[in-house]
Amino acid sequence: MSQQPFPKNTWYVAAMSEEIGTEKPLGRKICGESIAFYRPSANEIAAVRDFCPHRGAAMSLGYVEDGLLICGYHGLKMGADGKTKEMPLQRVQGFPCMKSFAVEERYGFIWVWPGDQDLADPSLIPVQEWAISDDWAYGGGLYHINADYRLMIDNLMDLTHETYVHASSIGQKEIDESPVDTKVNGDEVITSRTMENITAPPFWQAALEANGLPKDAPVDRWQRCRFTPPSHVMIDVGVALEGNGGYDAPKDKKASSIVVDFITPETEDTMWYFWGMARNFKADDAELTDKIREGQGGIFQEDLEVLERQQANLKAFPDYDLLKLNIDAGGVQSRRVIERIIKAETAVKMVPNDAPLQTISF
Amino acid sequence: MSQQPFPKNTWYVAAMSEEIGTEKPLGRKICGESIAFYRPSANEIAAVRDFCPHRGAAMSLGYVEDGLLICGYHGLKMGADGKTKEMPLQRVQGFPCMKSFAVEERYGFIWVWPGDQDLADPSLIPVQEWAISDDWAYGGGLYHINADYRLMIDNLMDLTHETYVHASSIGQKEIDESPVDTKVNGDEVITSRTMENITAPPFWQAALEANGLPKDAPVDRWQRCRFTPPSHVMIDVGVALEGNGGYDAPKDKKASSIVVDFITPETEDTMWYFWGMARNFKADDAELTDKIREGQGGIFQEDLEVLERQQANLKAFPDYDLLKLNIDAGGVQSRRVIERIIKAETAVKMVPNDAPLQTISF
Amino acid sequence: MSQQPFPKNTWYVAAMSEEIGTEKPLGRKICGESIAFYRPSANEIAAVRDFCPHRGAAMSLGYVEDGLLICGYHGLKMGADGKTKEMPLQRVQGFPCMKSFAVEERYGFIWVWPGDQDLADPSLIPVQEWAISDDWAYGGGLYHINADYRLMIDNLMDLTHETYVHASSIGQKEIDESPVDTKVNGDEVITSRTMENITAPPFWQAALEANGLPKDAPVDRWQRCRFTPPSHVMIDVGVALEGNGGYDAPKDKKASSIVVDFITPETEDTMWYFWGMARNFKADDAELTDKIREGQGGIFQEDLEVLERQQANLKAFPDYDLLKLNIDAGGVQSRRVIERIIKAETAVKMVPNDAPLQTISF
Repeated sequence: MSQQPFPKNTWYVAAMSEEIGTEKPLGRKICGESIAFYRPSANEIAAVRDFCPHRGAAMSLGYVEDGLLICGYHGLKMGADGKTKEMPLQRVQGFPCMKSFAVEERYGFIWVWPGDQDLADPSLIPVQEWAISDDWAYGGGLYHINADYRLMIDNLMDLTHETYVHASSIGQKEIDESPVDTKVNGDEVITSRTMENITAPPFWQAALEANGLPKDAPVDRWQRCRFTPPSHVMIDVGVALEGNGGYDAPKDKKASSIVVDFITPETEDTMWYFWGMARNFKADDAELTDKIREGQGGIFQEDLEVLERQQANLKAFPDYDLLKLNIDAGGVQSRRVIERIIKAETAVKMVPNDAPLQTISF
Repeated sequence: MSQQPFPKNTWYVAAMSEEIGTEKPLGRKICGESIAFYRPSANEIAAVRDFCPHRGAAMSLGYVEDGLLICGYHGLKMGADGKTKEMPLQRVQGFPCMKSFAVEERYGFIWVWPGDQDLADPSLIPVQEWAISDDWAYGGGLYHINADYRLMIDNLMDLTHETYVHASSIGQKEIDESPVDTKVNGDEVITSRTMENITAPPFWQAALEANGLPKDAPVDRWQRCRFTPPSHVMIDVGVALEGNGGYDAPKDKKASSIVVDFITPETEDTMWYFWGMARNFKADDAELTDKIREGQGGIFQEDLEVLERQQANLKAFPDYDLLKLNIDAGGVQSRRVIERIIKAETAVKMVPNDAPLQTISF
Repeated sequence: MSQQPFPKNTWYVAAMSEEIGTEKPLGRKICGESIAFYRPSANEIAAVRDFCPHRGAAMSLGYVEDGLLICGYHGLKMGADGKTKEMPLQRVQGFPCMKSFAVEERYGFIWVWPGDQDLADPSLIPVQEWAISDDWAYGGGLYHINADYRLMIDNLMDLTHETYVHASSIGQKEIDESPVDTKVNGDEVITSRTMENITAPPFWQAALEANGLPKDAPVDRWQRCRFTPPSHVMIDVGVALEGNGGYDAPKDKKASSIVVDFITPETEDTMWYFWGMARNFKADDAELTDKIREGQGGIFQEDLEVLERQQANLKAFPDYDLLKLNIDAGGVQSRRVIERIIKAETAVKMVPNDAPLQTISF
């Protein structure tokens, strides 16, 4: 690769909390780093290079005991700091310390900082309001996709594709007949579209119904895609009974939710895609959560082949200059933000923080 | 690859007509070109690069509407000429025109010219008599093989292999006991073998029977393999009751047919193999057509592993000088024709037809 | 690869005798050489390059007839010396002779010398006592593993891993609490461990029982791993009723066996792993042999993922300096022996045996 394709000094979602139990670690590659995630105790999370300093075995094939990660090959016991704490019959003080990663559990997800651990500040993890209020319910899942993570950002920052890729659920003709408005605010990019006085598509008819509203009534529909670095896209979506103010309509006149997308590079051209939906109606209805998750999972799966084939095409024609239309503004602006962050990060690396500039006297 | 491995300015079979419906395009790589084939109307066929000028999506994942190919990602509408005709809310005049390909539907197949469209002349598509006469019936299929397309030409231009690869159906000892005769006539190569007064092998016994002839009677058997560029091999095969003139025997004394082989490079070392059999007896018997297709499909599948393993061996020993025996003359001569055509095509490219030689005055 | 990763002028196990019948050859890659093994007669074995001199077809797709290997493509008949003996309608004297390999059948295995056939001396095949005495029974199997063959040597020369990888069968805490003793004796490396007055783990309890001994009695357990070049590891293992001398206990006080490991490189980073167990009790009990084979097969399969993931890790961090602890001494010393042999072999190659040094006079 000619250039680092993703920022590393930033927080990515690495896993859903429920993917990591207390006995077995989880091995997952994030931004090119093979990482073993494990729980030293039920409420803790740790992340170390998935590489045993003894003979290079994958630590994620081992197990957890007394808060330590035990290598499943010869029993080396590693701490959350990457240091070997014990090994049967061995003196381990001189063992090399393996890289450990800043990691936090928050909002039902495991967040990892794949770069320099010293720079990791947990307060930089973006606040997810929907995850901390009882008014909201959340359901989601994870897909692995063989495509550059930025193709998914493009995808989500231009919902025109719903008309075509998701024609039978959330797509409708009115989407691509309505212009988008894209705004950049520092590192945040927002692209919005409003469709007034339309009939709701199947997915939203079901949501209206679940919300106790007439599914066939004319509605105003909105989509507000919000990109924040490195690669999170939150989309406010919903429909309100026509003429009630759309997005600003009172709660009993609308069905709305947030499409939650955490997009995490695995390698240069593969990604982990955490998708989900947070809704602030019928938050207690677990059955509804399951139903929506299942529906969304099916819809979002339709994107996979599109993106993987697009990736293959772009590899075959690396010099083709893709069009940048108004509908692409959200993705284009988001990529600019990413580009700027990568540049800043790479520039910083010229002076590594563990090797300060030396003054040389003659 | 050190040299272009196939002619590009020529007609190849890209698909069987029935593979392409009126609603969905077909994506297929031919001679290294990813192509989306589609029908602007029921009786038309079009071929464009399988690459959306907007964001590089695969056009073949889209659909056909009002004679245009619609990209399934954001709705760009492309014409058969590769030009974008429409896109919701966009002015498309300035969109880059994608490569389109000369394509024709003829004889139940889709023919494509993967090279320079301006040079494509439909009259160069080889006439297939069996496909236009009611006296003939045809059945066939398609295999994808991980081997250089020329290995299949070698295979078909030396039917000695039938004795070994197809021992239980069309093979028989007498084949490799009979010498072949190879003739080159311009770009055509013909290699023939005649076996007199033999017992027909199982496949031909069934054909004799289907033809109302005694299956156990002694027969004269013939094979005439005809190569024409770029990579078509038609094989006249049959058996006649012994002493009736063999190939020239009257119709009621023989069972004969044409093995139809259209071999199309997908990439440098993979191919599409369109195989089939045209017969001029019991042409109305659709059940017999199915039975023969099934039998032939099984027999020809036996070649796949042989060719794929041969390809792997040749990759491992690229400098090994393969023997060129008399039985190989058909393949060797066919390759010479191909080689000559590639050379001519490459030489022509030195003076690209869209950049005429300039006279420079001093 | 920067350096030849395995000796080639030595005997490797290529197959189990029962893998090769009298009619069909077996194609298998050994030390990077694609080889077709076949039986000229029921009690003979031959090995030639798996490459037909005619057109490069895989000889192993053919069959055996009258002591010759027949190419399944066009019927070329090859002898065990790699020479073409016959081909229908052809004069074969001038056909190039393909490489043949020294090959022997012994102890229920096919042994091959992938290097220079002239240097192959059958007396160098290591004697396997257990295979020639009626007091012993043997059962085993074969696994293909995507890892450098030396990782399996490391694995077997440090049985500490049993505690972790095979916790439920042959592993037990006492293994890694007992130090190992490693001795080098010329090209042989022996690493031993003794555990006194312990409870036998499940596998050995079953063996005690099968041997008519109380399974719950305290035992002395031993493991003696013996490496011999190029990559054979024989492990004397067993338990004796406590206080009877352990390894030296009388036969009716112990259950013991030899874990037989023939490790054969396929390529630089893949291997064939022939595993088995020879026991000198109840040698006539075929049912017991099957039961042990099944149990061992399950246990040894647990190593596969560990080694393949280790291989992937070492590829990702090629410069990481693995630790060499006392428990690793067996593997480390074995690798030194291998390294020395490769060096000697490579040095010899500087003066190829078919091109003697020439005296140049001025």
